[in-house]
Amino acid sequence: MNTPPVRLDLDRRRRLGLVEAVWGEHKSVDQLTVVLRQLRAAGEIAFVTRLEAGKEAALRRALAPGADPCWQYDPVARCLQVGPWPDPEASLGAVAVLCAGTSDLGVAREALLALRAHGVATELIADVGVAGLHRLLGELERLRRFRVLVVCAGMEGALPTVLAGLVPQPVIGVPVAVGYGVSAGGRTALEGMLASCAPGLLVVNIDNGYGAAMASLRMLRSVPAAAGAPA
Amino acid sequence: MNTPPVRLDLDRRRRLGLVEAVWGEHKSVDQLTVVLRQLRAAGEIAFVTRLEAGKEAALRRALAPGADPCWQYDPVARCLQVGPWPDPEASLGAVAVLCAGTSDLGVAREALLALRAHGVATELIADVGVAGLHRLLGELERLRRFRVLVVCAGMEGALPTVLAGLVPQPVIGVPVAVGYGVSAGGRTALEGMLASCAPGLLVVNIDNGYGAAMASLRMLRSVPAAAGAPA
Amino acid sequence: MNTPPVRLDLDRRRRLGLVEAVWGEHKSVDQLTVVLRQLRAAGEIAFVTRLEAGKEAALRRALAPGADPCWQYDPVARCLQVGPWPDPEASLGAVAVLCAGTSDLGVAREALLALRAHGVATELIADVGVAGLHRLLGELERLRRFRVLVVCAGMEGALPTVLAGLVPQPVIGVPVAVGYGVSAGGRTALEGMLASCAPGLLVVNIDNGYGAAMASLRMLRSVPAAAGAPA
Amino acid sequence: MNTPPVRLDLDRRRRLGLVEAVWGEHKSVDQLTVVLRQLRAAGEIAFVTRLEAGKEAALRRALAPGADPCWQYDPVARCLQVGPWPDPEASLGAVAVLCAGTSDLGVAREALLALRAHGVATELIADVGVAGLHRLLGELERLRRFRVLVVCAGMEGALPTVLAGLVPQPVIGVPVAVGYGVSAGGRTALEGMLASCAPGLLVVNIDNGYGAAMASLRMLRSVPAAAGAPA
Amino acid sequence: MNTPPVRLDLDRRRRLGLVEAVWGEHKSVDQLTVVLRQLRAAGEIAFVTRLEAGKEAALRRALAPGADPCWQYDPVARCLQVGPWPDPEASLGAVAVLCAGTSDLGVAREALLALRAHGVATELIADVGVAGLHRLLGELERLRRFRVLVVCAGMEGALPTVLAGLVPQPVIGVPVAVGYGVSAGGRTALEGMLASCAPGLLVVNIDNGYGAAMASLRMLRSVPAAAGAPA
Amino acid sequence: MNTPPVRLDLDRRRRLGLVEAVWGEHKSVDQLTVVLRQLRAAGEIAFVTRLEAGKEAALRRALAPGADPCWQYDPVARCLQVGPWPDPEASLGAVAVLCAGTSDLGVAREALLALRAHGVATELIADVGVAGLHRLLGELERLRRFRVLVVCAGMEGALPTVLAGLVPQPVIGVPVAVGYGVSAGGRTALEGMLASCAPGLLVVNIDNGYGAAMASLRMLRSVPAAAGAPA
Amino acid sequence: MNTPPVRLDLDRRRRLGLVEAVWGEHKSVDQLTVVLRQLRAAGEIAFVTRLEAGKEAALRRALAPGADPCWQYDPVARCLQVGPWPDPEASLGAVAVLCAGTSDLGVAREALLALRAHGVATELIADVGVAGLHRLLGELERLRRFRVLVVCAGMEGALPTVLAGLVPQPVIGVPVAVGYGVSAGGRTALEGMLASCAPGLLVVNIDNGYGAAMASLRMLRSVPAAAGAPA
Amino acid sequence: MNTPPVRLDLDRRRRLGLVEAVWGEHKSVDQLTVVLRQLRAAGEIAFVTRLEAGKEAALRRALAPGADPCWQYDPVARCLQVGPWPDPEASLGAVAVLCAGTSDLGVAREALLALRAHGVATELIADVGVAGLHRLLGELERLRRFRVLVVCAGMEGALPTVLAGLVPQPVIGVPVAVGYGVSAGGRTALEGMLASCAPGLLVVNIDNGYGAAMASLRMLRSVPAAAGAPA
Repeated sequence: MNTPPVRLDLDRRRRLGLVEAVWGEHKSVDQLTVVLRQLRAAGEIAFVTRLEAGKEAALRRALAPGADPCWQYDPVARCLQVGPWPDPEASLGAVAVLCAGTSDLGVAREALLALRAHGVATELIADVGVAGLHRLLGELERLRRFRVLVVCAGMEGALPTVLAGLVPQPVIGVPVAVGYGVSAGGRTALEGMLASCAPGLLVVNIDNGYGAAMASLRMLRSVPAAAGAPA
Repeated sequence: MNTPPVRLDLDRRRRLGLVEAVWGEHKSVDQLTVVLRQLRAAGEIAFVTRLEAGKEAALRRALAPGADPCWQYDPVARCLQVGPWPDPEASLGAVAVLCAGTSDLGVAREALLALRAHGVATELIADVGVAGLHRLLGELERLRRFRVLVVCAGMEGALPTVLAGLVPQPVIGVPVAVGYGVSAGGRTALEGMLASCAPGLLVVNIDNGYGAAMASLRMLRSVPAAAGAPA
Repeated sequence: MNTPPVRLDLDRRRRLGLVEAVWGEHKSVDQLTVVLRQLRAAGEIAFVTRLEAGKEAALRRALAPGADPCWQYDPVARCLQVGPWPDPEASLGAVAVLCAGTSDLGVAREALLALRAHGVATELIADVGVAGLHRLLGELERLRRFRVLVVCAGMEGALPTVLAGLVPQPVIGVPVAVGYGVSAGGRTALEGMLASCAPGLLVVNIDNGYGAAMASLRMLRSVPAAAGAPA
Repeated sequence: MNTPPVRLDLDRRRRLGLVEAVWGEHKSVDQLTVVLRQLRAAGEIAFVTRLEAGKEAALRRALAPGADPCWQYDPVARCLQVGPWPDPEASLGAVAVLCAGTSDLGVAREALLALRAHGVATELIADVGVAGLHRLLGELERLRRFRVLVVCAGMEGALPTVLAGLVPQPVIGVPVAVGYGVSAGGRTALEGMLASCAPGLLVVNIDNGYGAAMASLRMLRSVPAAAGAPA
Repeated sequence: MNTPPVRLDLDRRRRLGLVEAVWGEHKSVDQLTVVLRQLRAAGEIAFVTRLEAGKEAALRRALAPGADPCWQYDPVARCLQVGPWPDPEASLGAVAVLCAGTSDLGVAREALLALRAHGVATELIADVGVAGLHRLLGELERLRRFRVLVVCAGMEGALPTVLAGLVPQPVIGVPVAVGYGVSAGGRTALEGMLASCAPGLLVVNIDNGYGAAMASLRMLRSVPAAAGAPA
Repeated sequence: MNTPPVRLDLDRRRRLGLVEAVWGEHKSVDQLTVVLRQLRAAGEIAFVTRLEAGKEAALRRALAPGADPCWQYDPVARCLQVGPWPDPEASLGAVAVLCAGTSDLGVAREALLALRAHGVATELIADVGVAGLHRLLGELERLRRFRVLVVCAGMEGALPTVLAGLVPQPVIGVPVAVGYGVSAGGRTALEGMLASCAPGLLVVNIDNGYGAAMASLRMLRSVPAAAGAPA
Repeated sequence: MNTPPVRLDLDRRRRLGLVEAVWGEHKSVDQLTVVLRQLRAAGEIAFVTRLEAGKEAALRRALAPGADPCWQYDPVARCLQVGPWPDPEASLGAVAVLCAGTSDLGVAREALLALRAHGVATELIADVGVAGLHRLLGELERLRRFRVLVVCAGMEGALPTVLAGLVPQPVIGVPVAVGYGVSAGGRTALEGMLASCAPGLLVVNIDNGYGAAMASLRMLRSVPAAAGAPA
Repeated sequence: MNTPPVRLDLDRRRRLGLVEAVWGEHKSVDQLTVVLRQLRAAGEIAFVTRLEAGKEAALRRALAPGADPCWQYDPVARCLQVGPWPDPEASLGAVAVLCAGTSDLGVAREALLALRAHGVATELIADVGVAGLHRLLGELERLRRFRVLVVCAGMEGALPTVLAGLVPQPVIGVPVAVGYGVSAGGRTALEGMLASCAPGLLVVNIDNGYGAAMASLRMLRSVPAAAGAPA
């Protein structure tokens, strides 16, 4: 069977103001090659998530034989971007991405890169887990200048709960599939965030840094005058 | 044992800009009476969620012997508000609360009332479930004027997914514990929303209309100039 | 231990009108060799599902030393057919197999091949997931000419629900084990289809493209005059 | 709060050929009264499922003060029909509804009544559980004259599996929430049917007799000439 | 059937230094009457947990016809003690019982009463949930004088995690079956405590205030000189 | 760390009449070598379950340098026996081991070998799954001569239920971890057997052929005169 | 709807040597009346399990207007027997039913009564839970004279495991739905028994005292000469 | 991306008296190298858990080029300690670590090493599982000299329950992810320990030997005079 063409949702940018990201995990290198060629032909940047390093190397060989300055792969985030990064839009405001520990960095970086691919200014604030609470309390002042906070945590996932009780901005909890025993796979972190006693904590699927980024972007653009008008 | 005083978080309004809501479900009438007296003494309005009609009647007898115009109970939402409703703040923008069917109305109304208690303009858009898709498609134009969409759905919970693929605003899915068999208790709707193929869909706990409202409020206030400054 | 003979259900064609498919996943190459030899001796075609490429190659070496035009393996569907494909029976009507995204193609192709092995005309309609709803709405007219619709979807699995609210034919949802976090393994898609608000949606096990095909075949043959009489 | 009007999907008959059934479980008597009045005003029959006897009595007092020959309530099925029953359409063929034991009768009757409300000829075949297999084997000949078999079973739910290995028609398994310990709630029956070793067994949600009926109806109407044309 | 005598474990005090508590939930009033009579005949105090008020009243009528100063029932904890309370043993040190909110008081009081029944000095510190973190931080100094901290929390159950990162004593988390949606039944709080990122947090079953008390007692008695010698 | 000696339960043969089997799955080759040496020194046969072929080869190199006629490994059952097989005790009666399909053979053979290691006469009856019921019905007469029936089945696990409704002997269901989707891992088969509508069906853990064998042995020895006296 | 006749499995006594027990839980009084009348007409005794006291009283009024010496109801076991109890068959040997605590008595008595209804000699050994191990160890000698041991336990369900390591007879664990938190509903006890480290422990569904009795009966009758010949 | 510095919680020793352990499982060799360098620069010992042998070898090459007497890796426990072991503090008293079988040794050794790294005297008591109860009963006298008992067990996890009914000290159950079928992953052992009928049994997460050690250390230091004062 030859790899057939793919029906991309190129209308997404018009409808939602978002690039169609490509989910790399369950696609073969052949399928991804077809998708990336179609995106290039359409003049779109490509943003591929959950792409293992081996598949990225195979794709690079197939599609970008020389050194292509627009081809950028981050092995911690497992994300590939093909195409230029836009400049940050200062008027949108910024998003902070926090994470509890070193093991959450992959998911946090997926969120960061997805935001940058859409022109959003971001900062990473790492290693602020609640087992050593002074580290988080020491960052509260700095956090005031962000419009949205994306908080990645595994194990019991208490960090977004504690944070959402301390600051007034929207907080998006991203459960991370880091842990063992009852926390293996991220379910405990997910349910802890959903069950949070802090008012108004929002949640996305386990490891879904990309989804948290897209939700942040929707918020940034939803300013009083601009509701309903995608950027 | 006498009912002891309760340590309220009256600082929440200063920190987060939110009233401390009272969760009525697991508290006795005696406990709720103490809480409401303390809130009244502090000059705060009271907003009580998940309060059964029988408990509300007992509370009214204990606390509001005559007709009190500031005592308002909604039996569908099972919410009690004691104290005046603020006027809507037009500059914040508005929130739409959608629901798939009649059985989701209780949760949708909890969200509506919690928003109104904080001075947010809202509208309810009911009976737009995906089994008769034309009903939703017919509302798309009207939806453009809201800054945030709160979408309540039980059973398979597909409505927020379909909506988030059609409009650019932030969409908060609220799974509703309506259904039977695999959907009893709302787990299927919850997980369907978390697993959504639509980019950037946000989720709160099952039946948590209040949480969706508080998250919406955080978004409305997080405008470029005002980040970090609670209203 | 030598591999013993296997007791095949060769009566199945008489009773049910179906070929006995061989489930390749939990059988060794030795066991599969015995089964295929017995089917060949009985003059039956063989249809093997969930057969990894490595096992297929080993089987081919053992059983079909030269180029055998009746030996056909599809690596995306992981299905092997040994024996000639029957011509489609036009009088049965046709079955459409839809899938939400590229990652669902393996399951969709298993259904397609199992239908073709039984002489059913089929078409594949890919990339019609609900996150970009216009793609599905654009196919509604074409769908009218099929007697049964098989719909494969992973993640939240909303596609069969949306479709079953739009068209009157039998719709069989096939949940696909594509996703991560709460949707890993296909449970969320499965339960979303079972909990569907669309009336009369039918469901099979996760990844069971073969089962959806056999159910479709039972429907196609169950015409008013022919009930109870296998083709 | 007054009970607001409800947005019925009265277009469903045109699109799908199905009456919009009303799900009675999570609606109040006030809400149901509004719905039934709107259906009556539209000239539609009403079919209400999962309606407890007490709610039915209250509805009858509100809507049908005298003896109304078109008002029929079945307390075992917990179904109410308001409006005349259509005559069976002989050309469609018939559906058999089987059940394993007396405790499954409520679900089986829901399926029977939903089929009759749409003009389908049906028969009930009860007490054919697999613990006394001779009872089922004695019915095989009779089963040959039905186009579709709906099979309700609780506990381990093996009946549809055994039946689908014996007869060629479409078989729809309906898991029933009858059992205790691991089978309480119907999950074990559901998963047993999904995991069936019989080829092409179809499944609906636990206790969803109505869904099995609507799926049967879609099959009956999907004859070679009429595909895509709702009755 | 007459209620037969019961084989009490009266040796438990010698072996473990603990009274045999009576679990009231799944026993009939007749069974409990027999147990309490046997304990009285053996000269033991009775400590009954999970005893609903109605059963306590029936027991009181059967066993303690007049006002018995040794009969004490706490309806919030649902605990009955029959027999005198011992004086606190100052040399053991004290246990603090903390709880996140008013809804956790029943479980917290069960722990308090079980400790007092064994001569342990205790204090209750209520309403220190992490959504308003200043309340907990304000108690840190006071907490230093307790040898063991028992911490009751429902919903996401983050309180014991935060506390165990701040103080060096043994911390026993008691998940409370307070919450709704994913937190209903206390599973989320339990798993959050088990998955805690704070080192050395200990956990007991959901709502098991009694177990936390007995574990605390074991610790208090396990001083360097006295290990292995029950008090 | 050197591998320390192991405290074997060599008293088991006296107490229970059973050899202590060695569970090979979670032990290293070093640990297994120590265990087998200790058993040999004690004059006991060794029976090792769940031993992968690679570990068996390593053990053989370490312990049985030449061809040892008492060293027998079955790669399908993944069982190793070191020491002579006892002759069958005719007076005990025989056990039949049935399985539904080829994929269940590993578990069935583990039961067979464990029985033979204890001197029990056995027969294997394969490929009698309920999807082709005639195969089972054709064996009923032959089954009459066994005292106990061990029945291995994966997927929906209906075979022991059907059998226990047809024959009067003790039937032990062994769920097999064969299947995909909802049946992956064997849970569905396990719960189907526990929920069986057939009276008196007994169950052991998933894939526990060894346990079913030991339970059969306990039954064979429990004859009216000999109860309580291990052979 | 009139209550229709029921298709009883009166052949069960011939095939399996067992009376068809009637499961009382999910049947209405009308349905049970029909069943009991049919059994009486067939000259069979009736044995009804899981019958609440209120339903028993209603049945007695409908069927046995005067004092009927053959009508016996046990409210702890919730079992009704109508018809004479057979004399114990001494040659079969006896069955001991053990239980861990008072709360397990209902399930234990269901097993006892079901055995007595089939002419089996039994004894109840109560209050031998493992938290006070000396109670069990003191009964070991007495246990030697039983051919089968049925062991009922809730909470963590460790009793059958400990017992099966001490005695050689067949041991059937019956998990009891007694407990709270993680043990509510009996799942923990069930899985603890299935996962037992004791060789050859057999298990039935939660609360299934009847099933354990029928399995015991199958064992008692399966003596070397009589295999395959129902009594 | 370069590996950035890590924000260690070096204040933990002052606050809690504990070294910050490093969780090796989800960190890359690069990340671990950074962490170990920072700890060395701060003059702290490093204790790394869940570190596979391959990663340890890579770390050793990067950080400790020659033979470093302070570098000690235990492949059974998968723990690395870099830095000198403190001498045991005799005044603290000792901790016994028990395990049911050979397969639990890895978790037991993690607990032992974590205790020794903090200057606690420990002993390992292996192979005392309840299937051969005499082995445990023979150790009771020896157990009396320990202040805390840490008990590791997989499968049904009954050992800590049996032990906590026999001795008065604090008992910490550590469920071990050893088993298959229902016990795979350690859930059954965990829930069995939480549901224990023995009073005051404490539990930590599956495989969390380190957590049990830290909890033991908190207990040892919490002597009457010293509460609240970390060593």
